[in-house]
Amino acid sequence: MTTQELIEQIHKKRSFLCIGLDVDLHKIPKYLLEEDDPIFTFNKAIIDSTHHLCVAYKPNTAFYEAYGLKGWKALEKTIKYLNNNHPEIFTIADAKRGDIGNTSSMYAKAFFEDLAFDSVTVAPYMGKDSVEPFLAFKDKHTIMLALTSNQGAFDFQTKQVEGQEFYKQVLKTSKTWENSQNLMYVVGATKAEYLAEIRQIIPDSFLLVPGVGAQGGNLQEVCKYGMNKNVGLLINSSRGIIYASNQENYAEAAAHKAEELQQQMAIELKRHFE
Amino acid sequence: MTTQELIEQIHKKRSFLCIGLDVDLHKIPKYLLEEDDPIFTFNKAIIDSTHHLCVAYKPNTAFYEAYGLKGWKALEKTIKYLNNNHPEIFTIADAKRGDIGNTSSMYAKAFFEDLAFDSVTVAPYMGKDSVEPFLAFKDKHTIMLALTSNQGAFDFQTKQVEGQEFYKQVLKTSKTWENSQNLMYVVGATKAEYLAEIRQIIPDSFLLVPGVGAQGGNLQEVCKYGMNKNVGLLINSSRGIIYASNQENYAEAAAHKAEELQQQMAIELKRHFE
Repeated sequence: MTTQELIEQIHKKRSFLCIGLDVDLHKIPKYLLEEDDPIFTFNKAIIDSTHHLCVAYKPNTAFYEAYGLKGWKALEKTIKYLNNNHPEIFTIADAKRGDIGNTSSMYAKAFFEDLAFDSVTVAPYMGKDSVEPFLAFKDKHTIMLALTSNQGAFDFQTKQVEGQEFYKQVLKTSKTWENSQNLMYVVGATKAEYLAEIRQIIPDSFLLVPGVGAQGGNLQEVCKYGMNKNVGLLINSSRGIIYASNQENYAEAAAHKAEELQQQMAIELKRHFE
Repeated sequence: MTTQELIEQIHKKRSFLCIGLDVDLHKIPKYLLEEDDPIFTFNKAIIDSTHHLCVAYKPNTAFYEAYGLKGWKALEKTIKYLNNNHPEIFTIADAKRGDIGNTSSMYAKAFFEDLAFDSVTVAPYMGKDSVEPFLAFKDKHTIMLALTSNQGAFDFQTKQVEGQEFYKQVLKTSKTWENSQNLMYVVGATKAEYLAEIRQIIPDSFLLVPGVGAQGGNLQEVCKYGMNKNVGLLINSSRGIIYASNQENYAEAAAHKAEELQQQMAIELKRHFE
């Protein structure tokens, strides 16, 4: 999917919501465990009830790998269901991969070709040749960790490197890589004030912003500092939406939560674009 | 597996060789592609011919994920084969994972419980709460990226942070984490001279050292600067061993290459321990 197609979807649906499909079998309705594939059954119901309210879905691979072969199969079925039924949806494999060049190429093949995701998240620690194999794919997007929303972000990401925070060094350096136009960045919403400075470094890039729900970020603040002329934001919510209820009404309850966020997003889009 | 058991194996086999099982279907003997599971068939033959010469095997997950469900199944069969037939072997899932706390727990479950690896490699960028869920597992080992062997290592890892290289900051900080005794570190052999400084920070930890073969490191240098009273080194070779031949004699050829390294290692162990 091209960036332009993503932007069009955002304006059409008046939403820049990404729903995280992080399925934990301990948290979904108990009666689903009797299904042949409870993870996919749950995802399908969530997708069916929310796809008109969001522009992206983001399964985190950890939740699938934890269930071994069955989990990987559920991931395959989920991405196939999305690609077949909702090709307008932007799909994100939240995998946080990164390895030496020839190995990163195998990961890129796994997520862009075999599973056919539109994008994958990657970690920057190993530098240029660990990320460029992902960037080489046309109309695919590589979402690099910059400033994450967890407490551990302060261990290294905000340390001073050559007179600025390390994550800014990561942002600046990444702009020099080949096909850097295919980069997006993960920036946690728990630090909305940082977004203004981040936008000075990467004015045009899309940011994937976790942490607006469970992790405490504020949507209006994030939009104030982070929105650009292309919108430039995908706001992720996972647990806050998919675990809104663990009863039979779980898909409806998820849609209700998603709609609350979508409506706030519509207000923000109106504020910035009308 | 305990660290002590690993050390005993090293002295018994006079080897601290780790063999990387990075199976690329374009590089294995062509006739294997007719097999039902060419990846596992290849791995089994390599393991059967080399297990007496090494103390560890390290499948890199990228090479398995690139083949989707079939790949994941081959990974499961490989680790099961190792655990059932060679329980004395230290197994490493080279996965370079790392995510926010509850998500890292899912990865730890995937590799330590579901697949039953002895260890997994992790990336440090997201800090303490992204690594501690792995460290919580008793007698399991978490091998964190410190100084990698690729060119991109110079993008961030060697940048100055608070008066020292970033990777040293990573080493020092990680020592303060809970259950840090379960940490090992990835340190590339292309920079053997760095090992002396690294040993000042982490004198007792095991180091997983890639890059002695294809990436150009020198075994004697690595041992001079990196070996400690517990040996403290696992030297990895992947392509140099498993792709020694792409003919019918591939397993034999791999054993021959592994033996060359093992014999050099026996000399180093003698030099340091007798």
